[in-house]
Amino acid sequence: MGGERIGEDELVAVIRKVLSGGGPGVVVGPGDDAAVVDPPRGASVLTTDLLVEGVHFDRALTSARDLGHKAVVVNVSDVAAMGGSPWYALVSLGLSEHDDPSWVVEMYGGMRAACDEYALSLVGGDLNRSSVSVISVSVVGEVAQGRAILRSGARPGDRIVVTGALGASSGGLLLARSGNAAMTSEWGRSLLEAHFRPVARVGEGQTLAQSGATAMMDVSDGLLLDLSRLCSESAGGARVALANVPVAAELLELREAVPCDPLELALSGGEDYELLATVPAGAVDGAREKLGERFGVALTDVGEITEYGFVGVDESGAERPLEPRGWDHLAG
Amino acid sequence: MGGERIGEDELVAVIRKVLSGGGPGVVVGPGDDAAVVDPPRGASVLTTDLLVEGVHFDRALTSARDLGHKAVVVNVSDVAAMGGSPWYALVSLGLSEHDDPSWVVEMYGGMRAACDEYALSLVGGDLNRSSVSVISVSVVGEVAQGRAILRSGARPGDRIVVTGALGASSGGLLLARSGNAAMTSEWGRSLLEAHFRPVARVGEGQTLAQSGATAMMDVSDGLLLDLSRLCSESAGGARVALANVPVAAELLELREAVPCDPLELALSGGEDYELLATVPAGAVDGAREKLGERFGVALTDVGEITEYGFVGVDESGAERPLEPRGWDHLAG
Repeated sequence: MGGERIGEDELVAVIRKVLSGGGPGVVVGPGDDAAVVDPPRGASVLTTDLLVEGVHFDRALTSARDLGHKAVVVNVSDVAAMGGSPWYALVSLGLSEHDDPSWVVEMYGGMRAACDEYALSLVGGDLNRSSVSVISVSVVGEVAQGRAILRSGARPGDRIVVTGALGASSGGLLLARSGNAAMTSEWGRSLLEAHFRPVARVGEGQTLAQSGATAMMDVSDGLLLDLSRLCSESAGGARVALANVPVAAELLELREAVPCDPLELALSGGEDYELLATVPAGAVDGAREKLGERFGVALTDVGEITEYGFVGVDESGAERPLEPRGWDHLAG
Repeated sequence: MGGERIGEDELVAVIRKVLSGGGPGVVVGPGDDAAVVDPPRGASVLTTDLLVEGVHFDRALTSARDLGHKAVVVNVSDVAAMGGSPWYALVSLGLSEHDDPSWVVEMYGGMRAACDEYALSLVGGDLNRSSVSVISVSVVGEVAQGRAILRSGARPGDRIVVTGALGASSGGLLLARSGNAAMTSEWGRSLLEAHFRPVARVGEGQTLAQSGATAMMDVSDGLLLDLSRLCSESAGGARVALANVPVAAELLELREAVPCDPLELALSGGEDYELLATVPAGAVDGAREKLGERFGVALTDVGEITEYGFVGVDESGAERPLEPRGWDHLAG
């Protein structure tokens, strides 16, 4: 810690005040060797994600509050991608000497806000020193027995659908890094929001599951890379109608202020946390209607699952092989 | 990664081969957005721990295999300290450029070995680039409803007991850092083993719970610091009989080779992962007998819970205030 050296026990005491004392099903919350909770009624969904300074976030660009919020949301999104509901979160922090206590408490505040938003209880965690700031969040959720939607269930002929619009998160990061004055515009703020305060599609995931989705995942590393993984798990291919890919409208404005290729951002930018699913052809309209009614969220048909290959089709009908580029966690 | 640049998907494929395909209660293992498991029958015990290079481990001293093993064991120990059983583990890795693929696969091998040893299933995780190597493990376990042993249940008059012997882990670290030739001796190897391959007391924790333990935790940060936390949670004090503290016998040998104070290591060294519990005075003998019979593990009475204060008593009966020193996670 910086000038204001504070011990673990003191900081834990402050954090425990920020955290909820309990919540539905919480038997033992933060402060003991482990948390104790009532298990979800259905099957348990378990997921974990690590955010590392300089790789996943830049302290100069993100606020502690947004960072804490996002660290929870990316995990909630993984539960959503199974068709599940999040219940409990655990946090491990590695704090560098740059993290003063107020920064840590702010970050916990952001986590708490995200937990309140998605109705999770933050039940415990762990504080450590580290040479670089690290945030590890794990979430336990629930999905009805036998109802989890995996990546491996897509079948040739299934339509490929995606919620919302793509590319806004990576566009927001571009804009933030550019320092361009357009950050204060309405579309600029919307792009920044997409990057720093992403939304997890929990209800949408459950609705897609109920609508007969055969496979599902969240778009965290870019549509093409994530779709190639879904295809690989399902032992199939994909034909993507490039003109149908829902490019975030704000990117057309961004292009005027900061050089970028909106379609490329939508295809490979990553961190959108929209849901990518496959559904039988006859189920697309019903799913789209429900998502619109319940959540006001668009569902776009971007192509179909094939026996093999990974190709894009342009408006003229010409096909070209697609390269599954996107965020490689080990390249950064 | 170093010379042998490898992408995330390739490394994930290798790791999935190292991991078990399933295990009891595993519905969806590694490779999807989240794992899906049958929830434990009792209450769920949730815990997480982060190991950071340069803080919790030194790549020059520890093998990848030992490191992976220990990352799992420290979490299992937290579950043991509640009187629970571990079931499922999740892993997040932050890999630095020093971590070549064989190192990562070896580390997963160590995790797998620990999971086999304690009958957990390693159900998922996450790989990331990082400027420093980071290992985050979360464990989901089980404890019978209403039977978790917290830190807060100690009452004045309860005896303070500890399993096994203390100080061996920090003695092992001292020895490893010294480079002393005594590392190859039988006692030297035993100290190194205590540090690099710690044991979690799962059966012992359950036995202490059944024997009426009123409070329990694991000794991860040092007996005095951990006991002071237990006292603080229980709103009580402690009187510790210093001559009764079970100092690891190997430390008397270590002292001849490397300057150290065995009692100080036992009181404040940390990372022993023995269990510290409080039990009603009449229950000590029964608990000790069961631990001896079932596990061949000693249980030592080291003092009693008082109304307030935190004092040590020496053999002459003289009292002195104890300073709860130990491992401060934020000082390192």
